[in-house]
Amino acid sequence: MVLLATSGMMLLPMLVDLYYGNRDWCAYAFSATLSAAIGSTLVRNRRKSLRAGLTLRQAFMLTPLSWFSVAAVSATPFFLADYGSVSGNLANAFFESVSGITTTGATVISGLEGAPPGMLLWRALLQWMGGIGIIATAIAILPALGIGGMQLFRTESSDRSEKAMPRVRQITLVICSVYLGLTVFAALVYWLAGMKPFDAVAHALTSVATGGYSTSDGSFGTWEANGIQWFATAFMLAGSIPFVLYVRFVAGDRRAFWDRQVRSLLMFLALVILLLGSWLALSGQYALEPAFRHAAFNVVSVVSTTGYATVDYTLWGNAAVAVFFGLTFIGGCTGSTSGGIKIFRFEVMAVMLKAHFLRLIYPNGVFPRTYGNRRLDDDVVGSVVAFLTVFFLCYFVLTVLLMALGLDFLTSASGAATALANVGPGLGEIIGPAGNFSSLPDGAKWLLSIGMMLGRLELFTVLILFVPRFWR
Amino acid sequence: MVLLATSGMMLLPMLVDLYYGNRDWCAYAFSATLSAAIGSTLVRNRRKSLRAGLTLRQAFMLTPLSWFSVAAVSATPFFLADYGSVSGNLANAFFESVSGITTTGATVISGLEGAPPGMLLWRALLQWMGGIGIIATAIAILPALGIGGMQLFRTESSDRSEKAMPRVRQITLVICSVYLGLTVFAALVYWLAGMKPFDAVAHALTSVATGGYSTSDGSFGTWEANGIQWFATAFMLAGSIPFVLYVRFVAGDRRAFWDRQVRSLLMFLALVILLLGSWLALSGQYALEPAFRHAAFNVVSVVSTTGYATVDYTLWGNAAVAVFFGLTFIGGCTGSTSGGIKIFRFEVMAVMLKAHFLRLIYPNGVFPRTYGNRRLDDDVVGSVVAFLTVFFLCYFVLTVLLMALGLDFLTSASGAATALANVGPGLGEIIGPAGNFSSLPDGAKWLLSIGMMLGRLELFTVLILFVPRFWR
Repeated sequence: MVLLATSGMMLLPMLVDLYYGNRDWCAYAFSATLSAAIGSTLVRNRRKSLRAGLTLRQAFMLTPLSWFSVAAVSATPFFLADYGSVSGNLANAFFESVSGITTTGATVISGLEGAPPGMLLWRALLQWMGGIGIIATAIAILPALGIGGMQLFRTESSDRSEKAMPRVRQITLVICSVYLGLTVFAALVYWLAGMKPFDAVAHALTSVATGGYSTSDGSFGTWEANGIQWFATAFMLAGSIPFVLYVRFVAGDRRAFWDRQVRSLLMFLALVILLLGSWLALSGQYALEPAFRHAAFNVVSVVSTTGYATVDYTLWGNAAVAVFFGLTFIGGCTGSTSGGIKIFRFEVMAVMLKAHFLRLIYPNGVFPRTYGNRRLDDDVVGSVVAFLTVFFLCYFVLTVLLMALGLDFLTSASGAATALANVGPGLGEIIGPAGNFSSLPDGAKWLLSIGMMLGRLELFTVLILFVPRFWR
Repeated sequence: MVLLATSGMMLLPMLVDLYYGNRDWCAYAFSATLSAAIGSTLVRNRRKSLRAGLTLRQAFMLTPLSWFSVAAVSATPFFLADYGSVSGNLANAFFESVSGITTTGATVISGLEGAPPGMLLWRALLQWMGGIGIIATAIAILPALGIGGMQLFRTESSDRSEKAMPRVRQITLVICSVYLGLTVFAALVYWLAGMKPFDAVAHALTSVATGGYSTSDGSFGTWEANGIQWFATAFMLAGSIPFVLYVRFVAGDRRAFWDRQVRSLLMFLALVILLLGSWLALSGQYALEPAFRHAAFNVVSVVSTTGYATVDYTLWGNAAVAVFFGLTFIGGCTGSTSGGIKIFRFEVMAVMLKAHFLRLIYPNGVFPRTYGNRRLDDDVVGSVVAFLTVFFLCYFVLTVLLMALGLDFLTSASGAATALANVGPGLGEIIGPAGNFSSLPDGAKWLLSIGMMLGRLELFTVLILFVPRFWR
């Protein structure tokens, strides 16, 4: 069914390319047909067992499988297209497709201003689909699987049982409307603030999805008038808070956004932006408004794992590079379109550490751990710890492999981080916010593609398929 | 009492400098007097309460306090000496002293061949004292405090109670003899293999202590004949296994070294050396014997956190840099002279992860976690997790601060790692195995000194002093 939806989406860039008289429409027509053919065959063969519901094991297998198939068919139009480094290059086409569907936003295409509109729209649509896809996965599937401490949010949105998909359709429908509404609203705002309609739509699709693909090599630095960068900051933020909160708000809960995760995220962002903005202003690099605008935009862009940039913030100095390197790992809220480690995991670790310090001082004391008004039992803390361990293990392995391919230390370390956290730009001259992933060796692109997919699916859904016991 | 011992130790370099007619003997005479004066005052005032035993809180305070005071008085002769960058420079003198006492081995002195023998001996003695000091701390104090999962080894060596120092003297005495015996043996072997007597003694002191200070700028690369590098590899290894095992072996337990930690360490080292050595030989960088000799020596040097080098292994290529960066964190066994995260913590995490994967597959299963034949309860796993979290938190903060001081990414990241893990050399052109810490800004030296101290004392003994609740 996901493949059928992808096929339908491909008709949009096909129509756009037909309208502009670009030959690439054939690429989309072919890919749409392919995707529809595979999808409909699968749906016809499996309809009965689908109705019976999914077992835990099936849910584990289906999640990476469906994401991977969408990434594969979505790479086809890039491969068949007649523009840029993706054309006829499998590594580049797959990288661009995975970076799109995982809402990472790292690109191998330069000269975006001259790219065919169909391709630009397809990149944006991929991220938009990926955004709603990960919200659905994070709400419906991951908590039920008990992955990475997300069972903490189970009671809000789903129940744990062998049948992993209760109430999915109902919640998904409401959230889809909110997602669509936010996107339309963003497109209108961007258009009114001075973007061309096409650019407005493309950026609306990738803002709300916290994706980061732009239609300009200069990213959001190309548009500066009418406070458009402030609006974009707001939309990236809107995409990185839990979407169930919108549902509650629509259902009449006025205090829906007074959520523990949202408050922590906002407080963290405010602190970083305040410090960075003040420093930019006081050090004389910018006047007051631009200092805070660039600080707010780029910090929110990295923490929400969008990956737009207004300027090359690596030129702000060594300390800024270190700060942005750290921010790459943070991430937004769970149940949103953003990736990364996510703010609640840091809070769980902080609660755990506090209890540990108290136990060192009072060895016989009992210190209950709580998150908001919920008890943090060992199951949740253990899952979060396991997630972080596996995250940094993958991060380390990925960095070493990238270095073995000859990349320098900063490129490898930041590339691995930006892929696993689905941010987009790395650091350094090659893959920094002013750079591009096209010059990397093909091996590095495959590795980073795997990294993006692993990070997007919260690691365990993919890695568990490599545990022998899983198949018994 | 530790200050009195330090004072006594200072008489050795004083005598050596007197013998060679070097004016620096005054520096040691003054420092010894100072140290003895402070030490004897403290001992006289506190004798009664010492006899009554230490409370948990006192043990927490005494540990960092005594290490810091020894580092401070030990810096005095460097500061007063008339040679190299330490002379009259507080940051350099303190850095060299901390790097010595923590058995890190990072140095700010170049031109070691021309340095006064008193200074060379003092550097070696500092590491030797630091080595036996950390063994005593790790056996007698840390497990009782429940730090970093070391309570796992409590039953072997000490008991948990409010009185934190049972059987310390008895165990310390046996271990001191073994430590001294190993050192004398190493000195003899080095001498017979061709070192001058003074160099043999100095390197014996820093090998068994897994310290890494050398009497030559070329480190162990200066001595190559008669398999001396293989012998040094063995002595570094001997310093990085738990010293209680020697006690057991001496007491007649023939299978004492068939220990879980030792086996894991040896298996890990064998694997890494085999891969690295084969690659060095197959890629044609070295002939067979030198390939495995250099691989074994430098891998053991970094994993045992000694920090000698036979060659500049960063020239082996990008992949080797990545591998050595990773090795910097590993460390040897607990209860030895080596630092780092230590091998048993990785094993505890592996056991935890395995249980977590099984729980994902069988949500209702019960999977007991064991280490060797001991049960891994939540207390131990929680301590290990807290240790790793705080370790990487400190690592991140230290890296950011070093970058803010203007150091490049590789220097900052590897410098922070090498300090916290007490290894010695970092990576990159400045602080790599062929480099030197003297050109770093003073601020970086103070930060790295703090890092070395934090790492050596397993973080929590120092950090807990900054928890307000501790002082109530």
